[in-house]
Amino acid sequence: METIYQRMGAEELAAAIAALEAEVAEVTAKGLKLDMARGKPSPEQVAISRPLLDVLSSSADLMDEGVDCSNYGCFEGIPSARRLAGSFLGVPAGQTIVLGSSSLNIMQSVLVHYWEKGVPGYTPWRKLESVKFLCPVPGYDRHFGLTQDLGIENIPVRMTPTGPDMDEVERLVAEDSSIKGMFCVPKYSNPTGITYSDETVRRLATMKCAAPDFRIVWDNAYCVHDLTDHGDKLLNIHDVALEAGNEDRVLEFASTSKITFPGAGVAFFGSSFANMAEVSRTLQVGLISANKLNQLAHARFLPTMDALHAHMAKHAEFLRPRFALVQEKLRDGLGETGCATWTNPNGGYFVSFDSQPGSAKRIVALCLQMGVKLTPAGATWPYGIDPEDTNIRIAPTYPSLEELGAALDILVLATKLVCAQLASEERA
Amino acid sequence: METIYQRMGAEELAAAIAALEAEVAEVTAKGLKLDMARGKPSPEQVAISRPLLDVLSSSADLMDEGVDCSNYGCFEGIPSARRLAGSFLGVPAGQTIVLGSSSLNIMQSVLVHYWEKGVPGYTPWRKLESVKFLCPVPGYDRHFGLTQDLGIENIPVRMTPTGPDMDEVERLVAEDSSIKGMFCVPKYSNPTGITYSDETVRRLATMKCAAPDFRIVWDNAYCVHDLTDHGDKLLNIHDVALEAGNEDRVLEFASTSKITFPGAGVAFFGSSFANMAEVSRTLQVGLISANKLNQLAHARFLPTMDALHAHMAKHAEFLRPRFALVQEKLRDGLGETGCATWTNPNGGYFVSFDSQPGSAKRIVALCLQMGVKLTPAGATWPYGIDPEDTNIRIAPTYPSLEELGAALDILVLATKLVCAQLASEERA
Repeated sequence: METIYQRMGAEELAAAIAALEAEVAEVTAKGLKLDMARGKPSPEQVAISRPLLDVLSSSADLMDEGVDCSNYGCFEGIPSARRLAGSFLGVPAGQTIVLGSSSLNIMQSVLVHYWEKGVPGYTPWRKLESVKFLCPVPGYDRHFGLTQDLGIENIPVRMTPTGPDMDEVERLVAEDSSIKGMFCVPKYSNPTGITYSDETVRRLATMKCAAPDFRIVWDNAYCVHDLTDHGDKLLNIHDVALEAGNEDRVLEFASTSKITFPGAGVAFFGSSFANMAEVSRTLQVGLISANKLNQLAHARFLPTMDALHAHMAKHAEFLRPRFALVQEKLRDGLGETGCATWTNPNGGYFVSFDSQPGSAKRIVALCLQMGVKLTPAGATWPYGIDPEDTNIRIAPTYPSLEELGAALDILVLATKLVCAQLASEERA
Repeated sequence: METIYQRMGAEELAAAIAALEAEVAEVTAKGLKLDMARGKPSPEQVAISRPLLDVLSSSADLMDEGVDCSNYGCFEGIPSARRLAGSFLGVPAGQTIVLGSSSLNIMQSVLVHYWEKGVPGYTPWRKLESVKFLCPVPGYDRHFGLTQDLGIENIPVRMTPTGPDMDEVERLVAEDSSIKGMFCVPKYSNPTGITYSDETVRRLATMKCAAPDFRIVWDNAYCVHDLTDHGDKLLNIHDVALEAGNEDRVLEFASTSKITFPGAGVAFFGSSFANMAEVSRTLQVGLISANKLNQLAHARFLPTMDALHAHMAKHAEFLRPRFALVQEKLRDGLGETGCATWTNPNGGYFVSFDSQPGSAKRIVALCLQMGVKLTPAGATWPYGIDPEDTNIRIAPTYPSLEELGAALDILVLATKLVCAQLASEERA
């Protein structure tokens, strides 16, 4: 796509750059301090979960269907929390484990398990010459960090409007048995906000893999995080995989970190019976039981999916105007410029923003100069390397609307100046 | 030591066995169901921590010295909880990390870190032909399980009344560079209840190790768990190691699991600055932040070491009569028989019981027949193999006094019958 700056004559472009530079100088002089980098809810939004802190008190019944939540035991999690986990993940409650606050932490433990011990009957991944993981891009940097930390090679695969490029995924996994797995955030994917289509889910669950020990890390982090009543619908991958005889392929994760208190919720893991038993043997070596009192508080605070959805509707009240403001500011500021494209998700925590090739790092740096912190350019790619240098993750949830508006104005300004400069450099 | 049964004449011994067998038959017929296997507090004891559940409520201030405990961030733990951790571990607060509920879980992560990446400048342990760990015996089975799970070889070292046999420890670590570490429960050791002498602590902190990347897992699980006001005193190993230039050697752990709620407390890790930074790099790959709300509740519930000791004094009220009953029942039942010896600790959760060689498994099995569940014989040794088959871990904390008395009577009876049978078999 050609930008308005590329279409300008030389003098017009020089004048545009001078005007934009003057604007940048003016904004820089203000010494602002704004943050659009963090995928976390605002303090006001978090406060809606405060009643959770009243659920348990010194006089509360601390038993959950025969399990004493105040003492050791029950590694797999308490019954009522496992039912909640089952509803979340779309697997039977008996195929779930409820652990501490971090699903990322469970993912790390599970990947270390396969790395050290492997799938029964196959070589542990650490003993193989090469182990690779598919990483949909733009994607979640902390996922890519898990595999990178173990020395697993991260292979980027492009996201499309219906999920990862499945032709490419199928081609890769069919021919390369060193590809042992893939990360997926199937609903409101981080950062695109895209939800995988039914066809994508079906193809992931049924595709032929050269590696019999291929595993999908299905991080359903935003499964109930709709902005409106008309949220995206995600096909249940467990059901499809089970029908295809591939139920061991899918490792499902979720947590309540963006439902109740970030970092202080409960996390869920679900998979086939065989996987649960196998992985639990390693997890249990290092854990007698997780915090069952927190599980109990959560299960009582969110006793049904209806209660959960009602709670999520309160979250959406805070998120909707922020996401709307992103669309408004970008459309008004950049809509006619050809400088950028961006996603318009129905839920989740992010908007993915793509500008001209070679622009993202410069835009992020220029924003920082003007007092706006963004997620580092490249963060959405394995090893922090976005080959075209186009992608920026916008995290609109934490700032106030006023701060967000100011930050977006600055992003617009930075994008315009960098694109104008690129157009000028092209000619030089 | 000769038992009374070994000193008996043949007829006297046969009569004694017949009488004991009759007693066993009588008890077996009662169909009791008693449990002396679990190192956990009784429900009544746990209940003293219930006021902790009132500390945070929907109207509480959720800030801790500038840290918002209700949102992401602050991987290392909140300031007030780190101060508590520092007091616990005897290291500066800035050299601690406060994480989720399980110190065992942190130990596993730290060992996996050294296994995968090693100490900077040295070969990762997984790449070495042989890696060994010293395991004081009798000791804690879950420690031994951590290393066993990674394929590290566990080498038993005898406990003495002043801690591990230091002559043996020094000899082994000086000559074998594949010995990369050692487990220690330095105060009220599990299961002996022994506290390491000052000399033992000094020798551990200063001994010459062939492996420059030797690490001590210093699990101070029972550091404040005194039965009386005159508890054992443990020398601060961090100070001694620091002075000797060995501060990187010691990895200190503790948790509040036996202070507040088992499995729902907070866990502490402390070491040198270099170790903390190094290990944190791996831990942070899989954890944004731990449950800071639980940290906040704990820091407010136990704001000072005085408050903590007052709380521990309440715990001791429950434990003291149970530990006294163990001594009374064993002394009255076995004191004159020569059949067994046992420890008499000033704190902790266990009593270590040693009977005749070749007797422990039979005693445990016979107790089970009479309705008393004990920790499996052998559990206190690596791989579950007690070479002399003498050691049984007594866990007196969970049952009521009445149940505990009945269980101890049965242990006495089983010990006597098995020792009488052994005396008879010796002659055959």
